[in-house]
Amino acid sequence: MALLDRVSSPEDLRKLDLKELPQLCKEIREYLVACCAVNPGHLGSSLGAVEIAVAVHYVYNTPFDKLVWDVGHQAYAHKIITGRKEAFKNNRKSEGISGFPNRAESCYDAFGTGHSSTSISAALGFSVAASLTGSGEKCIAVIGDGAMTGGLAFEGLNNAGATDADLLVILNDNHISIDKNIGALSNYLLKITTSQTYNRIKKNVWDTIGATALRRCIQRFVRNVKHALIPTSSGSLFYALGFRYFGPVDGNDVIKLVQTLRRLKKMGGPRILHVVTKKGKGFSAAEEDQVTWHSPGMFDPVTGKRLVKAVSASRYQDVFGETLLELARTDDRIVGVTPAMASGCGMNLLMKEMPHRCFDVGIAEGHAATFSAALAVSGYLPYCNIYSSFAQRAYDNIVHDVLLQGLKVVFCFDRSGLVGEDGATHHGMLDIVSLRSLPGITICSPMNELDLRNLMFSASLPSWGPTVIRYPRGYGAGVAWRCHQMEELQRGKAVKISDGSSIAVLSFGPLGNAASKAIARFVSEGGDPVLHYDMRFVVPLDTEAIGYAASVADTIVTIEDGNVEGGLFGAVSEYVASKDCRVQVIPIGVLHSFVLQGTQAEQYRSWGMDEEGIYGILKKIKNRKNK
Amino acid sequence: MALLDRVSSPEDLRKLDLKELPQLCKEIREYLVACCAVNPGHLGSSLGAVEIAVAVHYVYNTPFDKLVWDVGHQAYAHKIITGRKEAFKNNRKSEGISGFPNRAESCYDAFGTGHSSTSISAALGFSVAASLTGSGEKCIAVIGDGAMTGGLAFEGLNNAGATDADLLVILNDNHISIDKNIGALSNYLLKITTSQTYNRIKKNVWDTIGATALRRCIQRFVRNVKHALIPTSSGSLFYALGFRYFGPVDGNDVIKLVQTLRRLKKMGGPRILHVVTKKGKGFSAAEEDQVTWHSPGMFDPVTGKRLVKAVSASRYQDVFGETLLELARTDDRIVGVTPAMASGCGMNLLMKEMPHRCFDVGIAEGHAATFSAALAVSGYLPYCNIYSSFAQRAYDNIVHDVLLQGLKVVFCFDRSGLVGEDGATHHGMLDIVSLRSLPGITICSPMNELDLRNLMFSASLPSWGPTVIRYPRGYGAGVAWRCHQMEELQRGKAVKISDGSSIAVLSFGPLGNAASKAIARFVSEGGDPVLHYDMRFVVPLDTEAIGYAASVADTIVTIEDGNVEGGLFGAVSEYVASKDCRVQVIPIGVLHSFVLQGTQAEQYRSWGMDEEGIYGILKKIKNRKNK
Repeated sequence: MALLDRVSSPEDLRKLDLKELPQLCKEIREYLVACCAVNPGHLGSSLGAVEIAVAVHYVYNTPFDKLVWDVGHQAYAHKIITGRKEAFKNNRKSEGISGFPNRAESCYDAFGTGHSSTSISAALGFSVAASLTGSGEKCIAVIGDGAMTGGLAFEGLNNAGATDADLLVILNDNHISIDKNIGALSNYLLKITTSQTYNRIKKNVWDTIGATALRRCIQRFVRNVKHALIPTSSGSLFYALGFRYFGPVDGNDVIKLVQTLRRLKKMGGPRILHVVTKKGKGFSAAEEDQVTWHSPGMFDPVTGKRLVKAVSASRYQDVFGETLLELARTDDRIVGVTPAMASGCGMNLLMKEMPHRCFDVGIAEGHAATFSAALAVSGYLPYCNIYSSFAQRAYDNIVHDVLLQGLKVVFCFDRSGLVGEDGATHHGMLDIVSLRSLPGITICSPMNELDLRNLMFSASLPSWGPTVIRYPRGYGAGVAWRCHQMEELQRGKAVKISDGSSIAVLSFGPLGNAASKAIARFVSEGGDPVLHYDMRFVVPLDTEAIGYAASVADTIVTIEDGNVEGGLFGAVSEYVASKDCRVQVIPIGVLHSFVLQGTQAEQYRSWGMDEEGIYGILKKIKNRKNK
Repeated sequence: MALLDRVSSPEDLRKLDLKELPQLCKEIREYLVACCAVNPGHLGSSLGAVEIAVAVHYVYNTPFDKLVWDVGHQAYAHKIITGRKEAFKNNRKSEGISGFPNRAESCYDAFGTGHSSTSISAALGFSVAASLTGSGEKCIAVIGDGAMTGGLAFEGLNNAGATDADLLVILNDNHISIDKNIGALSNYLLKITTSQTYNRIKKNVWDTIGATALRRCIQRFVRNVKHALIPTSSGSLFYALGFRYFGPVDGNDVIKLVQTLRRLKKMGGPRILHVVTKKGKGFSAAEEDQVTWHSPGMFDPVTGKRLVKAVSASRYQDVFGETLLELARTDDRIVGVTPAMASGCGMNLLMKEMPHRCFDVGIAEGHAATFSAALAVSGYLPYCNIYSSFAQRAYDNIVHDVLLQGLKVVFCFDRSGLVGEDGATHHGMLDIVSLRSLPGITICSPMNELDLRNLMFSASLPSWGPTVIRYPRGYGAGVAWRCHQMEELQRGKAVKISDGSSIAVLSFGPLGNAASKAIARFVSEGGDPVLHYDMRFVVPLDTEAIGYAASVADTIVTIEDGNVEGGLFGAVSEYVASKDCRVQVIPIGVLHSFVLQGTQAEQYRSWGMDEEGIYGILKKIKNRKNK
């Protein structure tokens, strides 16, 4: 690590000789692999983008110039060369740094992110501000070809392309985001990179005559061919949107990249540099299986063997995937819709067996919901799986296109609640809050694998309308579920887990298991029996259960994996306040906070949502009563 | 109306001779103008799209074939020829029909809408369903060039363009949505329609050799020019996205349009027809001032003179517009951002005086918020005005880009609460509900014009962070506001309007005026004095005020213009339930319903949100106590 040890800031980097950069990139890669082997992270994207990070910081005057990373999990090299080499060992840990760019963490992280497709909008904002202020900073957005399919990226392009903003968009094209990218844009980019055009431009124009001559050449071409009818040639899409297009260039060739950026830096106006990179670059296992190695967990950095822990329980995503396939086999109406998360959510099983009934629509959550709505109008029953946090992108589509029309779409919100290492941008805290007041909706959550299976089945029955099934990231309670015949669960009906008096616990989702253990411990230590309902539904709310709880207990504890204000706590409070029940309601969940990175267990612990925390609350209530 | 009288369904329409269609269009236009003159509506767009509606229904086998209108306010002619000619006289009225396509209203309204940019996603869903089912219906989306700038439309194009879906997108290009369209796409379309290419294609290719030959011609062109470097020629953008492009053709020439559609109907795969229309077509006043005549109110159908009611009060949008300009004059950090609603929200004043500090980003609410976030990072103070209902499109951007980063953007949500005639798609019912639980936010609402002015000023002060100021459509309370020096309002502090006991009223926003009148009447008729707070803030919540209310009253009535579950009612309920206050909370607002079209006054009345309704609740509470 001879070179990397000398680089603790971009300023150091810029002191290196250009020809030293390939070696630096190699060292960064080795360091990345070594760190991620023991402390899992988003390895693949970051390996692919090492040269982009190095070249941009080498050529541009960061942090004065503004570098905006899209999504941000490609930015590990950026973190390492901007003073966070040591801190990177604790990447995504509670005592460490965020796995995504974060303004609070470094002045080099110009704009925080975690969700896709924001970088062009943000870089345009920086560029417009620089122009207003007259400060002259350059603005660069680095966006993957997957993120480019999100509508927000297009909104940014459309706005920027009509301005003279000094804005460089680096399109990092590796044909893959988490799964293989899908869509017309992806086809288009592939066509560019595989066409003769690529070679021709690369060999004849770009390499030999340089940027100024290229511009003249481009202008000449514009004059000559603008009346041609059809142009599926390089960059036409971006030209049409007011961007000058350059490329494609090899984004893993750092010297070429630096030379290219130096030329582009001198120009003004909105321009796009199309670079082709390899996801997983430099680590053969990751190059070969890019989907698995997007975020591989721990692994042996020498052999590339993944160290997969043996766990007896199933992940909720596995339950979802297998159950969906099983349902689809017997119910012809069922189709699957996913915004680019087929393998993450488990829909790859349906995709494999019934590709014609499974739709990966690209990173496009809003479209996923509206598209599902139309399928529902046509008599199909879409199971649309969106990670809870990303479903915020589809909020209006769920409201305006699905619920307002009373269309039956079954939304399965994977990764709801606290998600652990991905941190603040990825927690799914708002689904209950934002959707609870909407007419006609059902919002439910399983307490275990079997419940998820049965909720998925029940949602397909005629008596259920548009439904949200939310469930967390990770493993279930370890309940056997594959052997069971699916059975109908009564919509809006809570499940009494234990009876009691004085204190009632109303839990929603898998946290009910921790609650149940906490109660057992509390009772075993001499506490009065605690009434415990697994609410199973926030909408319709089982007001009979709540009424009973309010009649026997003087304290109700609500437990949910989300923001409590307006959530289950809100629903229960509204009921007891409007009915004038004389009972106090105490919330467990997240209040007034964005929760940072850490393990899911740490996050549950620090918010009192684990067995220990719930037990603590029960004891506190008891002690208060005894006073 | 000789022809129109014979057309009470598309089936009737299809019996007409092609050469009768221009006369039919003329009659539809006259009818449209006559109806809208006395019963205001979205005149301009619908006048422009008469021929599109007639031609599509003439050529396609609706309702079997699926016609999806984008936004939907261009669809009046469609309503008139699909059996709703008489009903159209009560367009947008509570006893009448919706001003937008609505599945509940007619089988010809394939997909309901009101928000922009959904049509391609929906039409793709229909097309995919038709292909799964094998039923063979044709799917057509009609989308304006403004709606095409919304990211959702791009997500739909990107998905569709990679399929072989039998899908026709009719791009209705009039260079204007509500204000003049802005953005690269708009420039691009303008370039197409004004270039020689247009004339060349029109004259030489399209007209003379017809569709099949044209296709061959196109294929030849593809082969010949695909290696050309630059292609700002017709349709390249859409070709790049996997669509075959046809046009531009005159969209107000119904015979040409029918001939064109007949040819296109026979083809398969995703294709786009670019038609150029004139907004306001056929009514000279509307053609000349397209912004005003987008939705002109009542007018004289002969002279084109608008019948503007003299109202002494100001509209909230006027207060916003003038105040923003005034603030911007003295505070250099302030900039304005609007997603295509400059004149609707009043930002046109700033746009006129300081165009460099005012940004119309196109119909792109998500981008508006993220772009604002970056401006805030750079030290600017963006006032980002979005209609509350459309802000649902920016939900994730507000959460992930603004609030999570603690950036100070002042969101002004115009048209919050019930909006009247535009109905269910346009009410702003969810802003409080969806945003209340987020850390660091301030959510406030003025009771009158002066409050709005002062809230806008206060939000600019250093002690305030990211802020939402919500206010309704329409006129203020008639309070003098221009003469007043702006003054700081204390963040999180409610205003006591009247003191009392037994019953407390907590209102949020301008409904406080109705509450205040209702209370005066209630007291004048012998009721006990009623404690009334204008809460002014939902976040931070004035818990001191609520605590006081709970200590003196046994009933609290919350009043808000939005969904009550999770709203102010939720916030107050949570407080009293968690503090174990012995008080009953009764909500006034909307519960479990999508509210249909009607006047704003009717809507307030039917939800008990006007003086009469609030008075009624007070009396009911009193009577119950007396029992």
